[in-house]
Amino acid sequence: VNGEPRTSGDAHVSARDRGFTLADGLFETMRIRQGRAFRLDHHLARLGRGLLALHILSPAGMREWVLGAIETAGPGEEASLRLTVTRGIGAGGLAPVAAQPTVVITISPMPVFPDRIYESGLAAHVASGRRNERAMTTGLKTLAYVDSVAGFLEAQRAGADEALFLDTDGHCSEATASNLFVWTGSLLLTPPMSCGALPGITRASVLELASGLGLDTSDRPVTLEQTVEAEEAFLSSSLRGVAPLVRIGGRAIGAGSPGPVTRRLAAAYAALVARECGS
Amino acid sequence: VNGEPRTSGDAHVSARDRGFTLADGLFETMRIRQGRAFRLDHHLARLGRGLLALHILSPAGMREWVLGAIETAGPGEEASLRLTVTRGIGAGGLAPVAAQPTVVITISPMPVFPDRIYESGLAAHVASGRRNERAMTTGLKTLAYVDSVAGFLEAQRAGADEALFLDTDGHCSEATASNLFVWTGSLLLTPPMSCGALPGITRASVLELASGLGLDTSDRPVTLEQTVEAEEAFLSSSLRGVAPLVRIGGRAIGAGSPGPVTRRLAAAYAALVARECGS
Repeated sequence: VNGEPRTSGDAHVSARDRGFTLADGLFETMRIRQGRAFRLDHHLARLGRGLLALHILSPAGMREWVLGAIETAGPGEEASLRLTVTRGIGAGGLAPVAAQPTVVITISPMPVFPDRIYESGLAAHVASGRRNERAMTTGLKTLAYVDSVAGFLEAQRAGADEALFLDTDGHCSEATASNLFVWTGSLLLTPPMSCGALPGITRASVLELASGLGLDTSDRPVTLEQTVEAEEAFLSSSLRGVAPLVRIGGRAIGAGSPGPVTRRLAAAYAALVARECGS
Repeated sequence: VNGEPRTSGDAHVSARDRGFTLADGLFETMRIRQGRAFRLDHHLARLGRGLLALHILSPAGMREWVLGAIETAGPGEEASLRLTVTRGIGAGGLAPVAAQPTVVITISPMPVFPDRIYESGLAAHVASGRRNERAMTTGLKTLAYVDSVAGFLEAQRAGADEALFLDTDGHCSEATASNLFVWTGSLLLTPPMSCGALPGITRASVLELASGLGLDTSDRPVTLEQTVEAEEAFLSSSLRGVAPLVRIGGRAIGAGSPGPVTRRLAAAYAALVARECGS
């Protein structure tokens, strides 16, 4: 917390921190492997763009703090790291005051994703609420995730693993905390930022890898019908990586099981993480 | 914090609290006058509906905690009180875990609103981003206020006092943390929930007062053009009360100064607060 090492039970922020009172901040979640954060500089660059957009002072030396936290925690083979930056302590009201930003770095064990996610694939529920592709903070990874939490709860009640959000125009946007990819007609599609999708770091890695494998890719609007009728679909995120999406609202995508393109990209992504983290 | 009295510098929450990490919680802001919270039961009822919608356990005895906090703080003639309830400490990831909710009650001096707000009125900038009238959490007062903060920053840069948000359909929705009222053709209009407006407690009080004064009221969609061309407009919120809105994007509303209906309702609202808080 602000560069001071803390144990989990002793890591606190002020109850007047604007991150807590107004979600007035941003975060990044990274995968740590063999003591190295995968694509740390990409995450820091995205965070930097968000801080600039929200006029939050960029704390000096964040990269060093992240590296120091990893070293202090000695996270072992694999872990996850969350970097949160808020505008700092507020005086009440919305008007930003000149404050020292609050920086919290949390290192946690890598979440255990059940094998069945990768072997059998995920089932998604179409969220009743829409993503807003024209919000003030569209494209920024702000702390405002309560809509995703509500979508996740709705998906759970519907017996699904994930919620898929449409944008206000009815195009596919993203899942609760992952980007969507659709393989259809020999083209790998992923919703663009203009459909409210977050510019995911894993999303960018997957687009790179797909091009490297000679696949045609495009970030253009994708309808729900196109997704359900696609040959394959998958979700991408930093911790879960490439996760097959095989069912939406009870309808099977393709054969209803992870397809060959998804498997190829999942393997390529795992290899990329291993390679860049030097193992 | 969770029923324990704390001074401002000593009021902390866990850095893993889902209110801080995901905006996974709700809040209410109330005006305290002569040791009494104005319309406490209305605020608690709205909070209760939000907790239910988000499947957050409703902490027992919140009313008593609020009353106890007011007594402990001895807030003097006037103060503001914020009641925040979050899902509690999380384990990482979106999936809600069974947690004790976190309850924070903050009592602060009543913010000082410059006299010119009431005497000359506010100027609003039309926010470049839209409110989402079809989000999972539309109508709930969640912690996700970063869009309002970004709208406020944009308004400041434009030299305005407030940001007015349109919904994704282009209707007027609300300001950063106030409801909009428009007086036009002998009718008092206020955007409905279906345009993304929050069901404000002050909004409800104003509708009551207007009916009591024999004015016709309606909560139906209002266009930006209708608002700019109206005879009068004002914003309502718990702390600022009824604040005249006299200018939008450089265009004057009516005479460009607070009108008689706004003044009448502002006086009626001030009298209502004084009456209900027993002074």
